[in-house]
Amino acid sequence: MGIFTKDIATLEDLFVHQLQDVYYAEKKITTALPKMIDKATDPQLKQGFQTHLAETKKQIERLEQVFKMYGKTPKAVTCPAIDGIIEEADEVSGDVADKRVLDAALIASAQAVEHYEMARYGTLVAWAKQLGRDDCAKVLHETLDEEKATDQKLTTLAETMINRKAA
Amino acid sequence: MGIFTKDIATLEDLFVHQLQDVYYAEKKITTALPKMIDKATDPQLKQGFQTHLAETKKQIERLEQVFKMYGKTPKAVTCPAIDGIIEEADEVSGDVADKRVLDAALIASAQAVEHYEMARYGTLVAWAKQLGRDDCAKVLHETLDEEKATDQKLTTLAETMINRKAA
Repeated sequence: MGIFTKDIATLEDLFVHQLQDVYYAEKKITTALPKMIDKATDPQLKQGFQTHLAETKKQIERLEQVFKMYGKTPKAVTCPAIDGIIEEADEVSGDVADKRVLDAALIASAQAVEHYEMARYGTLVAWAKQLGRDDCAKVLHETLDEEKATDQKLTTLAETMINRKAA
Repeated sequence: MGIFTKDIATLEDLFVHQLQDVYYAEKKITTALPKMIDKATDPQLKQGFQTHLAETKKQIERLEQVFKMYGKTPKAVTCPAIDGIIEEADEVSGDVADKRVLDAALIASAQAVEHYEMARYGTLVAWAKQLGRDDCAKVLHETLDEEKATDQKLTTLAETMINRKAA
C-alpha cells in the first residue's frame, strides 16, 4: 500500500485491502510462532502456541477462500502494525533473563497479536456484511471466534499458572 | 528497551517496562487523534474521537498515578507496536479518496488502537494483581473498562452508520 496514492475508492477496495493486510499478518505470525514455541518453557504454553500455529495455517486457508469467493487472487500487502507488534515481542523477549518471566512476556506478546487480529477480523466481518457478502462474513467469523477463544485460553493460562510462576 | 540486554529480571521489572511502553503508546495516541479528528467527516465520529482524546489524557494521568504508587518516575520507552499501528493508519487513510470510505477506514484504525490498549491494560491488571498490588490493578482497570467501552461505541457507530454511508 502507499505505492499508488488514493487507490482505495470504495468500501469494496478497502475490504480487499484489509484482506491483503491480514493475509500478510497471518503469514508473518506463522514465522513468529515457531520462535515463541522455542523460547517458551512451560509445556502448556508451548502446546498452546503449537495449537495456535496449526490454527493460523487454517486461518490463512480461510483467507484464501474469501479472496476466491470475492473473485480476487490472494495477495499480501505489508502491514506495519503486525511488524511493529512482532518487533516489540522480539525486543522484550530478548531483554528477559529469567525463563519464568520470559513465559509471562511471551504470553503478553501473544495476546497483543490476538487483539490485533480480533480488531481486524471484527472489521472485515462488518464490512463483508455491509457489502452484502454474508458468505464471506461467515468464513471470516469462524476465524474471529477462534482468535477470541485463543485469547481467552491465554488469559486463563496466564492468570492460573504463568504469572504465578513468574512472580 | 533493547539498550541493556537482559535488563528485565523479574515480573516487577516486566510490569514497569510494560507501564513505560503503554505510557509511550498513550502519548503517541494523543498526537495521532487530532489528525484523525481533522480527517473524519461524520460529526458523530469526529465527536467520538474528541471524547477519546480527552479520555486518553486522563489515562496518561492514571498511568502517572500508577508509576507514583509503584515508587517509579514516569518514563516512556519506544513502543514499536503502536508506532506500527499508527503508521498503518496513516498509510491507509492517505490511500482513501472518498470521504465516507475514509470514515470507515478511520474507525477501523481506531479499533486496532483500542484493541492494542485492551491487550496491554489486560496484561497490566493481571500482573499488578499477581504482584499483590490491587491498588494499581484498580486504577489500570478503570482505563481497561474505558477502552472496552470506546471500542464498543466505535463498533456500534461503524455498524449503524459509518459503514452504511461508505457502501
